[in-house]
Amino acid sequence: MAKKASSRLEWRINVPEGTSKVLEPESGAVGKIWVGLKGCMGIIVLKVWRVLENAWHIGVADPRKVIHCIKVGLALSIVSLFYYMRPLYDDFGGNAMWAVMTVVVVFEYTVGATFYKCINRVIATFLAGALGVGIHLVAEQSGDQLKPIILGISVFLFASAATFSRFIPSVKARFDYGAMIFILTFSLVSVSGYRVVELFELAHLRLSTIAIGTSLCILVTMLFCPVWAGCELHHLIHQNMEKLADSLDGCVTEYFKENGSEKDLNKKMQGYKCVLNSKAAEESMANFARWEPTHGRFNFRHPWKQYLKIGASLRNCAYCIETLNSCISSEIQAPPCLRKHFSNKCMKASSYSINVLKELVITIVKMKKSSNIDVKVAEMNFAVEELVDALKSLPTTHFIATTTGEESTKAKAEGVEGSEHPSPIMKVLPLVKVVSLMVEIATRIGGVVNAVEELARLAEFKAAKDGKPKQNQPTDKLVADH
Amino acid sequence: MAKKASSRLEWRINVPEGTSKVLEPESGAVGKIWVGLKGCMGIIVLKVWRVLENAWHIGVADPRKVIHCIKVGLALSIVSLFYYMRPLYDDFGGNAMWAVMTVVVVFEYTVGATFYKCINRVIATFLAGALGVGIHLVAEQSGDQLKPIILGISVFLFASAATFSRFIPSVKARFDYGAMIFILTFSLVSVSGYRVVELFELAHLRLSTIAIGTSLCILVTMLFCPVWAGCELHHLIHQNMEKLADSLDGCVTEYFKENGSEKDLNKKMQGYKCVLNSKAAEESMANFARWEPTHGRFNFRHPWKQYLKIGASLRNCAYCIETLNSCISSEIQAPPCLRKHFSNKCMKASSYSINVLKELVITIVKMKKSSNIDVKVAEMNFAVEELVDALKSLPTTHFIATTTGEESTKAKAEGVEGSEHPSPIMKVLPLVKVVSLMVEIATRIGGVVNAVEELARLAEFKAAKDGKPKQNQPTDKLVADH
Repeated sequence: MAKKASSRLEWRINVPEGTSKVLEPESGAVGKIWVGLKGCMGIIVLKVWRVLENAWHIGVADPRKVIHCIKVGLALSIVSLFYYMRPLYDDFGGNAMWAVMTVVVVFEYTVGATFYKCINRVIATFLAGALGVGIHLVAEQSGDQLKPIILGISVFLFASAATFSRFIPSVKARFDYGAMIFILTFSLVSVSGYRVVELFELAHLRLSTIAIGTSLCILVTMLFCPVWAGCELHHLIHQNMEKLADSLDGCVTEYFKENGSEKDLNKKMQGYKCVLNSKAAEESMANFARWEPTHGRFNFRHPWKQYLKIGASLRNCAYCIETLNSCISSEIQAPPCLRKHFSNKCMKASSYSINVLKELVITIVKMKKSSNIDVKVAEMNFAVEELVDALKSLPTTHFIATTTGEESTKAKAEGVEGSEHPSPIMKVLPLVKVVSLMVEIATRIGGVVNAVEELARLAEFKAAKDGKPKQNQPTDKLVADH
Repeated sequence: MAKKASSRLEWRINVPEGTSKVLEPESGAVGKIWVGLKGCMGIIVLKVWRVLENAWHIGVADPRKVIHCIKVGLALSIVSLFYYMRPLYDDFGGNAMWAVMTVVVVFEYTVGATFYKCINRVIATFLAGALGVGIHLVAEQSGDQLKPIILGISVFLFASAATFSRFIPSVKARFDYGAMIFILTFSLVSVSGYRVVELFELAHLRLSTIAIGTSLCILVTMLFCPVWAGCELHHLIHQNMEKLADSLDGCVTEYFKENGSEKDLNKKMQGYKCVLNSKAAEESMANFARWEPTHGRFNFRHPWKQYLKIGASLRNCAYCIETLNSCISSEIQAPPCLRKHFSNKCMKASSYSINVLKELVITIVKMKKSSNIDVKVAEMNFAVEELVDALKSLPTTHFIATTTGEESTKAKAEGVEGSEHPSPIMKVLPLVKVVSLMVEIATRIGGVVNAVEELARLAEFKAAKDGKPKQNQPTDKLVADH
């Protein structure tokens, strides 16, 4: 089917090029087909062009992806040596194919993912091979009649059981690939065993070629510009935290701004969407990170799961910011005088909240306990309380003034402009929403603080230098052991 | 390494069983080891037991998963026949291995995923094989010295390019597996070609065994209890919609309830969390669904992408419900009298919103255009407006009464109880939040309605029978062509 489709495609491309000029005088149906083909070609070229353009942008945005591709090519070229060099070929023969296959299948973008696949592959191949040989020996004892039945049933049972194990979340997270390789190897061994006499020899060769493939992958992935899943997760978390701070800043600035919206601000405000959508990425990276050996500032048993909790608490904040964002874009807005009244207090509360987030970012980036996070949290809480107080004091001045109508002159003297809004509560409603969301966001930032402190405890972060650490100070200059 | 680890494990398990009784009198260190081992064993047994228990629950919750495992076992047993039956073996020889491998690697839970992998595998194998043979022929012409260099460079280039293509989102969504198989086949062909003379024969055998494997997979997956990714997505979407309706119902009931919380309610309220977390599942199912042929009520070109949009709009609602939920669990609550005042209107607005969601569920389940969705949306909007009006009229009665203090007697006559709260706005604040969230949720439900209507248009849903369709009426009894 694929062959047919492909040959038709070839025909499509070749016919117009060679025959168009000769056929044109005939026009009619042929002309139409020619125009149609030209259109098709145009669309295809355009699509390919777009994909290439897209690819270029991806490569420019993250050159490590390009490096990864070169690494794959390199690993494959090295493993090809087993075929090209005669002495190696004589040792392994056709089994060298398994080394090539291992490299293709096992080589992943991050070190953790490569380790996960390598370890799974080696262990699963070994287990399934041993089990297959064992069952083969048992089947051998029971005569030629029973042998295929025993082998068939064992394949059926083990394949079903291993397939089912892939549905169990805890197994899926760690051994999904291993379960697949187990089924593959077990089927191949128990089925090949029926024909191939030198089963042990085969198993030995297969295992050693796979070992060569995996160790090559591990070497290449770790030696040339390694991409650690743990580092990626670490970056993702503090980047998301920064995005959240920027979104909050953007939203509040946008709401209380005096002039039209700026484009930069709009882009900044959308950062929370990344936070909302990064759950899957965080989980897969945390899964891979635990396979990684000690690297850089991360130990083998770094508490990667705690990063998931931080991620969840960040998403919790992001939900609130999402609602805040929709408040900002809603049509009904509080009158400018009221906005002005709250502007300072809200901006203060938001800037203190952002300070807390930024302090957490520094804590995570530097992996040092912050000495003044408590102060910043207290400042945030104080600012939030001030905001709530301002809200509390609102009715006595504005509400009565506008509802009873008698004191409007007094109100005007206080700087409250007359408004076209029909009801006073509708006037303050948008502001009340924004303020209560600010309060809620501050509460949820408290959750993030707790999660980060738990991480600092689990990962045994050292205390930062006393006093205010400068933001751009290099990490290694900070004195530890406090 | 794996072997060593395994043998150590064996030792651990065997030693205590055989020798414990003899060694006990020596006690001391040995006794401690024995106790430690017993503890270890206990933990291992407990862990295995938990996994098994978990597996049992998974199987009971969704028997189709058990059926899937049986299907995998069946497909593998059938493909094993190629080895056991001599005439077939004589045709394919060792290449029958590729059929086994294909079945193991390609067989997925849903039909769509299996199709995706099968089609990708066949096309990629064909393309890479053809390219590999072509480059091999070119290399042959250029002499023995240049041949390995040309082959090595081509492997490097094509492997790198194909690896990079996997980073492009549009390619990743449709051809990720194909790209991997392309690298695999291309490397194997161009590298084996160096040794194996009968390259065309090999390619032919490989392709036909893969074709056998894939067609067997497709047959088994489609004939025995097929699980369609499209159906799964369809179910997921309307289930999420129902969960959202239940959450909304639960939240509002919980907020305005008179007595303590019920356990059932609490569970019901958490449904929105599933909606928040189902983005990844929706996307992968939509990706697989488009490979599926016409099945049941779904055409080949069913607008699966629109389901993603509905999912996004549902998540939009879920963000609001999340905030609503946190309002409910907050410590500061509006005084009972105020809650009572709004209870009816809020319950009404929420029940009309839920009605709209339920109508959408029926639309999706039956795949018929609803004749009275417009009425229900209008009812919802009307109820929301009433709620807003109630809020608007609030200050003139309650605010002044409580702020000026002079009219408290009159207020009490109206049924307003005195309260310990310091400020009147803090009293209404929680209610204002709930009400404004109700309004926002209704707006976002409007977004869901639009998305579902777009789906109805794209998928050409037929109009349902005039009048009110009963909820449990079987689908085929509804008259179409309206």
